[in-house]
Amino acid sequence: MTVDGVINKEAELSQLEALEAACRSRIKEHKKNGDKVAEKSQLEELKEVMRRKKELLGPKKKGENAEGTEEKAKDDVKSFTLKTPKGTKDYDEKDMAIREQIFSTITSIFKRHGAITIDTPVFELKEILAGKYGEDSKLIYDLEDQGGEKCSLRYDLTVPFARYLAENKISNLKRYHIAKVYRRDQPAMNRGRMREFYQCDFDIAGVYDPMVPDAEALRVMAEILKGLDVGEFTIKVNHRKILDGMFEVCGVPSDKIRTISSAVDKLDKMLWADVKKEMVDEKGLAEEVADRIGEYVKLKGSKELCEKLAADTGLSGNANATAGIADMRLLLNYLEVFNVLPHISFDLSLARGLDYYTGVIYEAVINDSPSVQNGEQVGVGSVAAGGRYDDLVGMFSGNKKIPCVGVSIGVERVFALLSSRRDRASIKSNATEVYVIGLGEGFLEERMRICSELWDAGVKAEYMFKKKPRSLQVQFDVCDKEQIPLAIIVGGKEIEAGVVKIRKMVKEEASSGDKEVTVPRTGLVEAVEQKLQELR
Amino acid sequence: MTVDGVINKEAELSQLEALEAACRSRIKEHKKNGDKVAEKSQLEELKEVMRRKKELLGPKKKGENAEGTEEKAKDDVKSFTLKTPKGTKDYDEKDMAIREQIFSTITSIFKRHGAITIDTPVFELKEILAGKYGEDSKLIYDLEDQGGEKCSLRYDLTVPFARYLAENKISNLKRYHIAKVYRRDQPAMNRGRMREFYQCDFDIAGVYDPMVPDAEALRVMAEILKGLDVGEFTIKVNHRKILDGMFEVCGVPSDKIRTISSAVDKLDKMLWADVKKEMVDEKGLAEEVADRIGEYVKLKGSKELCEKLAADTGLSGNANATAGIADMRLLLNYLEVFNVLPHISFDLSLARGLDYYTGVIYEAVINDSPSVQNGEQVGVGSVAAGGRYDDLVGMFSGNKKIPCVGVSIGVERVFALLSSRRDRASIKSNATEVYVIGLGEGFLEERMRICSELWDAGVKAEYMFKKKPRSLQVQFDVCDKEQIPLAIIVGGKEIEAGVVKIRKMVKEEASSGDKEVTVPRTGLVEAVEQKLQELR
Repeated sequence: MTVDGVINKEAELSQLEALEAACRSRIKEHKKNGDKVAEKSQLEELKEVMRRKKELLGPKKKGENAEGTEEKAKDDVKSFTLKTPKGTKDYDEKDMAIREQIFSTITSIFKRHGAITIDTPVFELKEILAGKYGEDSKLIYDLEDQGGEKCSLRYDLTVPFARYLAENKISNLKRYHIAKVYRRDQPAMNRGRMREFYQCDFDIAGVYDPMVPDAEALRVMAEILKGLDVGEFTIKVNHRKILDGMFEVCGVPSDKIRTISSAVDKLDKMLWADVKKEMVDEKGLAEEVADRIGEYVKLKGSKELCEKLAADTGLSGNANATAGIADMRLLLNYLEVFNVLPHISFDLSLARGLDYYTGVIYEAVINDSPSVQNGEQVGVGSVAAGGRYDDLVGMFSGNKKIPCVGVSIGVERVFALLSSRRDRASIKSNATEVYVIGLGEGFLEERMRICSELWDAGVKAEYMFKKKPRSLQVQFDVCDKEQIPLAIIVGGKEIEAGVVKIRKMVKEEASSGDKEVTVPRTGLVEAVEQKLQELR
Repeated sequence: MTVDGVINKEAELSQLEALEAACRSRIKEHKKNGDKVAEKSQLEELKEVMRRKKELLGPKKKGENAEGTEEKAKDDVKSFTLKTPKGTKDYDEKDMAIREQIFSTITSIFKRHGAITIDTPVFELKEILAGKYGEDSKLIYDLEDQGGEKCSLRYDLTVPFARYLAENKISNLKRYHIAKVYRRDQPAMNRGRMREFYQCDFDIAGVYDPMVPDAEALRVMAEILKGLDVGEFTIKVNHRKILDGMFEVCGVPSDKIRTISSAVDKLDKMLWADVKKEMVDEKGLAEEVADRIGEYVKLKGSKELCEKLAADTGLSGNANATAGIADMRLLLNYLEVFNVLPHISFDLSLARGLDYYTGVIYEAVINDSPSVQNGEQVGVGSVAAGGRYDDLVGMFSGNKKIPCVGVSIGVERVFALLSSRRDRASIKSNATEVYVIGLGEGFLEERMRICSELWDAGVKAEYMFKKKPRSLQVQFDVCDKEQIPLAIIVGGKEIEAGVVKIRKMVKEEASSGDKEVTVPRTGLVEAVEQKLQELR
């Protein structure tokens, strides 16, 4: 929302101009480095910026002719845009009620598995984040250099966790962390892709027997998705070593493995034909190598796929692939014990973008929210993801390696999903149980005194902040609007008689016989507590 | 903590060099602007930086001679400092247990008063924060300009709240917000002064009868301080209009009122003689004017002080003072109804630094934590504060004025206080109720199966991530260390007999008769639930 359309346009224009400058400087840099792919993608972005700028300037010029003077006057009074920064949003009380319910479900499951929680600062030293996110590092927010240390907003909760373990020389820990992270990505707010968003992470650090903590991370993921009631879901699982082995067997040159893996990672959003094109045309892979990869990444299944891969003449001779298949066999066995296997799809097309994964990787998708492109299923993105990262802590601790495995819940997507299902009007966003109502002259101090007694007893109570409320009805209206179940009514007659009235305000109760009772003023708190007990 | 002392030194040196450069450039700027006070204070800081640099470089030179080669080698491996940014800290699981208890107490009281909660982004457009914090604006963290909008980390939760109200055209709301805010202040970590810290805010927006919401904000403050059990406390209360009137009556020129008010605000940390010196020597106030102020700011009391001020020949003729005194009389009356008056000190020396306050202002201090300087009491800072700010929303909404009043709990200081009182070893930071223990061969899958059943029933359970744990004892040790009250024990004999053992692990229970029972494997979950019920 903006103060007015005119000011909005000016702010947007200056934004576009900043974007334009940034694009042009990046294009220059890519050209210098000979990075044709990046240069081309940046050129596309520049075109879009120029198009929006033209669009914006068109009508503006006209407007200036018609009402230029008025605009100038408004501009003098306030020249700021009344909005949150791009890619961020406010959560109102109804949003928060939904969000708190989500967090409470997730937290209780994390605790059920014995996790403790820690908190780390929202920004880290810039050098801590450097070199951890591959191509995505460009999305990191930096703080301005105002003298002192160079800092960046955290991009995830995993790298700060690794830093925490190394700094405090902790060699095993099961921790959860629910906090905001920051990415300068192109936002898609309605689908829950934002620049500021919550992550809910559960990680297990320590040297343990193979696949045991991995199985628990996946069990936690499945428990949460069931607990949040997001609908039927599938957890795709793969193994970085199987991927690496597969690329080796297919004949991908070792210096191209990371970039080809990035291309495979796009298979949930792009068709194979387009991914192949990227591999061959942009990344210079031989077409027959791409075709061999194409055969493997089609494969998905469960325990039987382990056997099929173990019997594959190519993979069975590759050390990486063999190790990965052994892990997967053990993992799927444990997941069967954990009753999670029905949700699992061992899927060779899953690659995950982040650099730091070293073993099992996974990603959960909701089954009934696919978008379809040219007859082929193209997912809308994952609601939870994670994997094993055995070398990340070592990047901070030097020689000491602390293996880790974890899962992160993409709670904004879950929020978008659950939020769209709820009737907002029916959400009670306050906790108020009792509204203290004054008749006639209002009796402000008596209402205050009653609230004070109720608060002392822990009862959630409110009253109207007016010496003399306009009418009884305006006070009843508050009860309706705020879904407050009980009203206490005081007036001159009641005060004289040393009593108060307690009335049930909930609609289904209002019709029943004991809608309103009169109780002695001295026994008010006990009477209210009893009525609340009845309503629970 | 740092990777090692040598690297630590180098990182610190580069920090000091950055600080030195920043100091020098600020000194140049202050000189240009003719701001002698700022220049002098910056010079002091530069001296300190140079002293630390010299100190650091001294021993370093010696070290290089002795073991220069080794240092060089280490430096090649990793050249970063393993720490959180200055003024920030990690919270470990014990800290978090204390913090969650504090937040839960505060949240329940906010909800008891009918407040809803909202959330706003951690950064705002820079222009939103501009011009709201007076001299403290220099402490705002800016984000680097990476193309797009200019943003700053929020400095408090009040300005974002005002922006939220204006943007969404909300004219009344009772909301709480618990979130982190950011200030580039000189940290004093052990006293809870940090660059990243939580605020817990409760605010009431809307046009209501005078002093009614103000009284509730103060009642909330008192309930929280009682609820947190911080010890005896005093809430100092004053009124901006009384202060303004007093300055007018004493003869402070109108263009000096804000700066003289800032000087008065330092009275909780400085002696009157020093504050007077600042007024006269630095701010150019006539000495007799300062002396007149000195007489007023000594005054403190309760309801009787209202009458004394009303009878004051100077103040009674001043419109501002008269309006402020009328408000205070009403407020103290309401606070008496709310049973809060015994905690209140109407204190004319309270000024509060922030620009946006327009009416009642207040600040709570703990009575038994004074530090004494030259025989006069000098407080350690407030644990909660707030006031009325009627014009802040209007700065965003243009013509529409939405009066507000609020309170903010300085939870880091409360944390520092409560944390110092607790025995850390006794804090249970996980929620685990049951540990599933394997005898002999370990029986990993059976332990997994049992946990799976317990998790399905919502029981908080863990097991050791080893196929074959080293011994029974290492598993018992985990129960002790993690304060887990129940153990389930499975071994070959138990599996054969179709039973499991349940053992109470809590020390006081361990001596009682029913320390261990054997139950059928099929009835395990029910038996565990019953045992847990007994332990509660």
